[in-house]
Amino acid sequence: MAAPIDFYFDFSSPYGYFASTRIDALAAKHGGEVVWRPILLGMAFKVTGGQPLPTLPLKGDYGKHDMARCARYYRIPFRIPTQFPVATQAPGRAFYWAADQDPRKAKALAAALFRAYLVEDRDISNPEITAEVAAAAGYDRQAVLAALKSPEVKERLVKETQAALDRGVFGSPFVVVDQEPFWGMDRLEQVDKWLATGGW
Amino acid sequence: MAAPIDFYFDFSSPYGYFASTRIDALAAKHGGEVVWRPILLGMAFKVTGGQPLPTLPLKGDYGKHDMARCARYYRIPFRIPTQFPVATQAPGRAFYWAADQDPRKAKALAAALFRAYLVEDRDISNPEITAEVAAAAGYDRQAVLAALKSPEVKERLVKETQAALDRGVFGSPFVVVDQEPFWGMDRLEQVDKWLATGGW
Repeated sequence: MAAPIDFYFDFSSPYGYFASTRIDALAAKHGGEVVWRPILLGMAFKVTGGQPLPTLPLKGDYGKHDMARCARYYRIPFRIPTQFPVATQAPGRAFYWAADQDPRKAKALAAALFRAYLVEDRDISNPEITAEVAAAAGYDRQAVLAALKSPEVKERLVKETQAALDRGVFGSPFVVVDQEPFWGMDRLEQVDKWLATGGW
Repeated sequence: MAAPIDFYFDFSSPYGYFASTRIDALAAKHGGEVVWRPILLGMAFKVTGGQPLPTLPLKGDYGKHDMARCARYYRIPFRIPTQFPVATQAPGRAFYWAADQDPRKAKALAAALFRAYLVEDRDISNPEITAEVAAAAGYDRQAVLAALKSPEVKERLVKETQAALDRGVFGSPFVVVDQEPFWGMDRLEQVDKWLATGGW
């Protein structure tokens, strides 16, 4: 089957990054294509009353330990960034601007942005850093910087996040197969079965 | 290897219930024994700033959907209770009172209490119901009711929860292998590997 698969994530989310390294291959096994959709988790937290995991008592320390352990378990390069989490307007805007030109090339940009932040500890909340990463991925640096300041591009990321919230998406990663929602890297196994069987 | 394995859970937690159906068999594969330790999640929420999942906007609805879907995925009998969540002082106290007599028999009591609440929709926050479930599991009903009112037994559950918090336990299920913490039913796969390999 080839159900539409939406993959929501925030560029500051390690679990979103981990899922991003596996979601396309997982979907391809079943003939599916994935649409990548960065969101602003901060907007979701305002609705759910959530807080960034690293800031929470007990959970924050556990979370950082678990992220590093999961990265080793799945053999994914990873380092807890010095600034963690960060605002992700810059990478999110760059992504949608790039995706409107070429969705496939935009996924490579997203992967490079995740690596920059969560492997190389580069602060992608800084537009200059996001533009540098984009330039290395083949985009025009000045065009990226201009896009990051464009009212249309800014609005686009907010609208995408609002549309995600409107369909019940509140976390990262979050995968929707047809109308079926799956929250968390931990649910990729069930996503796999859902794609294979159409549900249970 | 036979590392000590502590299994923390709240009797109102479906994911704790799901894990309870698998944890002993998982440990036994590696020659391990599991100590079951019910806690009061409400005390943990005061530290982490958390809230019961079913009460949260967006997350609550998703959570109930995910619980039911996970139960079908793992083929575990389950029904969302009418009152959900409930306070779990009564089953927690009954458990520790029973565990001091015979830990193995107390696990059977815990399993019966989980079933009563999360399969048969019986409100185990009511001491009379918890006592009925215990009576069916071979305990003296009046002795159970007396234990539920005993200051020592009440204090015991609070102390166990505080000791759990002191070592960083804040959720349900939560498994600690030696000093290594694993939060969530989703981490049983990693617990399995940890027991097999001693870590990675």
